[in-house]
Amino acid sequence: MADGSLGGFATLEELMEEYIPPEKLQHARRVLYGLNMGESVSAMMLDGALAERAKAMDFDLRSAVFRAAPEQMRPPRVVRIGLIQNKIVLPTDAPFTDQAMAIRERVGQMLDTAGQAGVKVVCLQEAWHMPFAFCTREKQWCEFAESAENGESVLFCQAASRRWGMVVICPILERDAAHNETVWNTAVVIGHNGNIIGKHRKNHIPRVGDFNESTYYMEGNTGHPVFETAFGRIAVNICYGRHHPMNWQAFGMNGAELVFNPAATVGELSEPLWPVEARNAAIANSYFVAAINRVGTEVFPREFTSGDGKPAHKDFGHFYGSSYVAAPDGSRSASLARHKDGLLVADIDLNLCRQTKDKWGFQMTARYDMYAEFFNRFVQPDFKPQIIRDPSL
Amino acid sequence: MADGSLGGFATLEELMEEYIPPEKLQHARRVLYGLNMGESVSAMMLDGALAERAKAMDFDLRSAVFRAAPEQMRPPRVVRIGLIQNKIVLPTDAPFTDQAMAIRERVGQMLDTAGQAGVKVVCLQEAWHMPFAFCTREKQWCEFAESAENGESVLFCQAASRRWGMVVICPILERDAAHNETVWNTAVVIGHNGNIIGKHRKNHIPRVGDFNESTYYMEGNTGHPVFETAFGRIAVNICYGRHHPMNWQAFGMNGAELVFNPAATVGELSEPLWPVEARNAAIANSYFVAAINRVGTEVFPREFTSGDGKPAHKDFGHFYGSSYVAAPDGSRSASLARHKDGLLVADIDLNLCRQTKDKWGFQMTARYDMYAEFFNRFVQPDFKPQIIRDPSL
Repeated sequence: MADGSLGGFATLEELMEEYIPPEKLQHARRVLYGLNMGESVSAMMLDGALAERAKAMDFDLRSAVFRAAPEQMRPPRVVRIGLIQNKIVLPTDAPFTDQAMAIRERVGQMLDTAGQAGVKVVCLQEAWHMPFAFCTREKQWCEFAESAENGESVLFCQAASRRWGMVVICPILERDAAHNETVWNTAVVIGHNGNIIGKHRKNHIPRVGDFNESTYYMEGNTGHPVFETAFGRIAVNICYGRHHPMNWQAFGMNGAELVFNPAATVGELSEPLWPVEARNAAIANSYFVAAINRVGTEVFPREFTSGDGKPAHKDFGHFYGSSYVAAPDGSRSASLARHKDGLLVADIDLNLCRQTKDKWGFQMTARYDMYAEFFNRFVQPDFKPQIIRDPSL
Repeated sequence: MADGSLGGFATLEELMEEYIPPEKLQHARRVLYGLNMGESVSAMMLDGALAERAKAMDFDLRSAVFRAAPEQMRPPRVVRIGLIQNKIVLPTDAPFTDQAMAIRERVGQMLDTAGQAGVKVVCLQEAWHMPFAFCTREKQWCEFAESAENGESVLFCQAASRRWGMVVICPILERDAAHNETVWNTAVVIGHNGNIIGKHRKNHIPRVGDFNESTYYMEGNTGHPVFETAFGRIAVNICYGRHHPMNWQAFGMNGAELVFNPAATVGELSEPLWPVEARNAAIANSYFVAAINRVGTEVFPREFTSGDGKPAHKDFGHFYGSSYVAAPDGSRSASLARHKDGLLVADIDLNLCRQTKDKWGFQMTARYDMYAEFFNRFVQPDFKPQIIRDPSL
């Protein structure tokens, strides 16, 4: 419209107030997020049998397509990717081996559906193979930690990789026996032949709310690796690293075209942030982001406190799922459900990354030299902030 | 809800599809953005006379309140801030002095309304005193450039500042006579006594679409200053600088509690990005952001092309207004209208900045030393990206 009134409403708020009943509006406002269903995103028609399978197995199955403009000098590079979010299956007081096995069985159903759907790169949620027990500060949960080279979860993902010719990102709690039983939060990147290409360890570790993760593992020592796979250049920004713009940026500066953000975060803490951060990263760095959040409410055997003055309790709050894909042009997919296991399948044309760089030029207008100099000064103990004080004060 | 279903809908998309008519839904989707009307944000009851005044003068007047928790060791630091968005008033072929005078008169109405509303810090849009003529690449528009020390627009804002005891941020096209007629894109920060505290020059200059700004002025040379005013520590991130996370971050590292983002951007280029970037900056840096966008459609006397292969034309597209305030906790205000002049008044408790830092700890988990080292390497001509290639390729 020439007057910018968008066909009859001045702002989106007014539109929602006009149509959505008040009792639902309050919830909608809380989780409201950007959704650009522009030309580049549209729903993909998945095989009806897959939808039947998802329904029978009671998981959410959704899809999206992100298009890029045709180019004259190179062909499209469309990659079908998959995002899997999962609840734990057995109660947390079941034998640990049973818990791990039950999760593998459930995730295997979704991995195989992804393979049947033609997915070429799939990523699981953070520490998908175990309850997110860090709220408890109890150390027996470290038993779930496993080798990034030949742990059960990695072997399991390698098998799925070989079965479907699919790159699998497998985020685990890692036990590093070669370094004296050091525990890490790690994503293992498995090539389409089932080979381990490498691993990345979580760079930024939270100390917020029930996320007592610094009690269990330290800041990662693997830098910002980008994994060159048969289906594009991929990086992994694990969970809390999404709050750190420089972390996103370093993966981009190393050449990532697609960054997965396997996460585990709960509604009360972060839900208004969730639709903003991964999407901003996609925009700022001209790459695709696939943000994956754990789902479900996990109840632990013994009570713990949450540092909020409230009485001791046994559950972590609700992991709200809502996994989604964000594109370099600012568009994004719909999200998976807040309350169910799910598989999101998206076709992304990686050519959109370079097209967006050529259009917007953020990589050329970034003045990296100015920031290198600024950060060098900032990390000195005697750093003086650049403050200009009103002399009349 | 224990099952996370948010009172009857699994995702927000489904809720909107259920209630909003299809012909409006397509528009809503395009501009949909995060709006957390959580506990910290609520509408302020402005004096009825002010609402009458806004109605009579045909500008949009909205308000919001961002609360912080009470503390034992320091009092609340509530500051009332104002954001003003304005159209040009006369046609762009009117005499330049008339154009400038008409804009000052119009903006003066809103500045005085802000003063009457008790606003203590107000910011205008980028180059508010002139048409955003950079699309034309014609150099006579440089006539609008003026001194940052005693130009007409600055003197005008100093008068408003003295009248209301109000800090005024005045973003202008600057002519730097002391440096051989250099032109800059500059924000002048005027203290509550009408004194000029200092200025900041736009750090990142776009070369995208009709934003031929690099034709008119160069990258700023003022670093990332934070202005310590009677009402808090303030910085200014001008327009395209909002696409650069490090730019936001450097202002934060210098101690900003409130960052204004005076901008001028059009719907087709950036509207899906607008609700994401300023809000992400507020979250990532634990400060308030006030994002201000120009409004209206500007038509120029002579035709120009837009580098998109379309025929020559005379208008810039629609500047969509939608100015808003984002808070460190992820909440945000409603936005001003897409199509009207407007004043947004917000009470913000600056204590929320430090409270958010203490809660989330981004400033302590950021690993600045790692990034200083990374950026030092990146800016070397022989930088080698950290790429791990699948050896089976």
